[in-house]
Amino acid sequence: MNVHIVYAHHEPTSFTSAMKNLAVQVLSSQGHIVSVSDLWGQGFSATAQKWDFITTSGGHFNYMLEQKHAAKLDLAFSPDIIAEIQKVKESELVLLVSPIWWFSVPAILKGWFDRVLAMGVAWDSGKIYEKGSFRGKQAMLIMAAGGPAEYYQENGRHKATPVQILHPINHGTLAFCGFDVHEPYVALNVLGAGNDGRAQMLKDLQYRLENLTKSPNWLVKY
Amino acid sequence: MNVHIVYAHHEPTSFTSAMKNLAVQVLSSQGHIVSVSDLWGQGFSATAQKWDFITTSGGHFNYMLEQKHAAKLDLAFSPDIIAEIQKVKESELVLLVSPIWWFSVPAILKGWFDRVLAMGVAWDSGKIYEKGSFRGKQAMLIMAAGGPAEYYQENGRHKATPVQILHPINHGTLAFCGFDVHEPYVALNVLGAGNDGRAQMLKDLQYRLENLTKSPNWLVKY
Repeated sequence: MNVHIVYAHHEPTSFTSAMKNLAVQVLSSQGHIVSVSDLWGQGFSATAQKWDFITTSGGHFNYMLEQKHAAKLDLAFSPDIIAEIQKVKESELVLLVSPIWWFSVPAILKGWFDRVLAMGVAWDSGKIYEKGSFRGKQAMLIMAAGGPAEYYQENGRHKATPVQILHPINHGTLAFCGFDVHEPYVALNVLGAGNDGRAQMLKDLQYRLENLTKSPNWLVKY
Repeated sequence: MNVHIVYAHHEPTSFTSAMKNLAVQVLSSQGHIVSVSDLWGQGFSATAQKWDFITTSGGHFNYMLEQKHAAKLDLAFSPDIIAEIQKVKESELVLLVSPIWWFSVPAILKGWFDRVLAMGVAWDSGKIYEKGSFRGKQAMLIMAAGGPAEYYQENGRHKATPVQILHPINHGTLAFCGFDVHEPYVALNVLGAGNDGRAQMLKDLQYRLENLTKSPNWLVKY
């Protein structure tokens, strides 16, 4: 398989970086071709701008409709967006490796959703969910969070499980574009877990990654 | 009251801009003091970076812990972050006016959460939810979304109501920092609603805004 990893952390010694390195290692050793977009490392721009398009339609500026316009003009996007679109198009599996900040991804990865998963490219009018443009591809979130595990329950302090917290991404973003979405791997309480705890988390993630293509465990099917 | 509006849209002729202008007009006419952060207009940086801090603690770089370090050093953040922190501190009500992109806010506003709602400023160890640093302040989301209203139901295509979709922001971000959170105003199907539909949405929003301080209608109390 072609596997593309979108990695969002600024610190090479972080636990998120360790999860990304493990994913590269496990999937490469299985013979997959693995590429990585290091969003912080490559200075990926998070903010949707008019100059994301080579030309604009000339009407009232609506970012989504300009995406559709650019897609029709043989991908008339800025080069950084085209590069990311091509990587996703060439992939059969996309892994998003990131911390959880404010019950979501850091802005730099949210900006990757906003700018790369463009109307006319990843989805279109009438082409969402089971008709999304990326149907047949797989995606999976691999994330690290702070805070004790007992907070992440419907009757806990966060009033939601990790899967509920990630619904806007797993369902509203990835499944919306047609991806088959794997159950996310979420490491909780990473700061508090200690070295032994973090080592065990990486072992658990390794097991998930080693068996990802053998026995896919979808979160959702649409 | 001091009211601060955080506004996230690039287009002055957008419906989101119209909602922001209406909020300024209604609340100003009631005698409140209203300020606006126009995130696109002021070129607000979405991405958390090491140079967000005047000095760093020197240890392993963890953005959250560096926030706590900077907060202790009398707000040793970059000037753009300090300016936003001051506006929130001086406010009794914060309105976030934004489109819904990918079941969330655009990256530029997510970056405002990441960078401004800093550990040591908006919350701290043991100071979350009812003990969050911004307790006593109010907050409210005012948002515009595409897609028909029937999608936004638990048994609809999005498998979630607007309030469920916004849980990561209303609960996991705003209530987490101690804000009392108003029921959000969400205009659905804005593109498809037509001029009459959009005019009615602005009337509905005007009613919400005019009665906001008279009969507060909290979404959640913690």
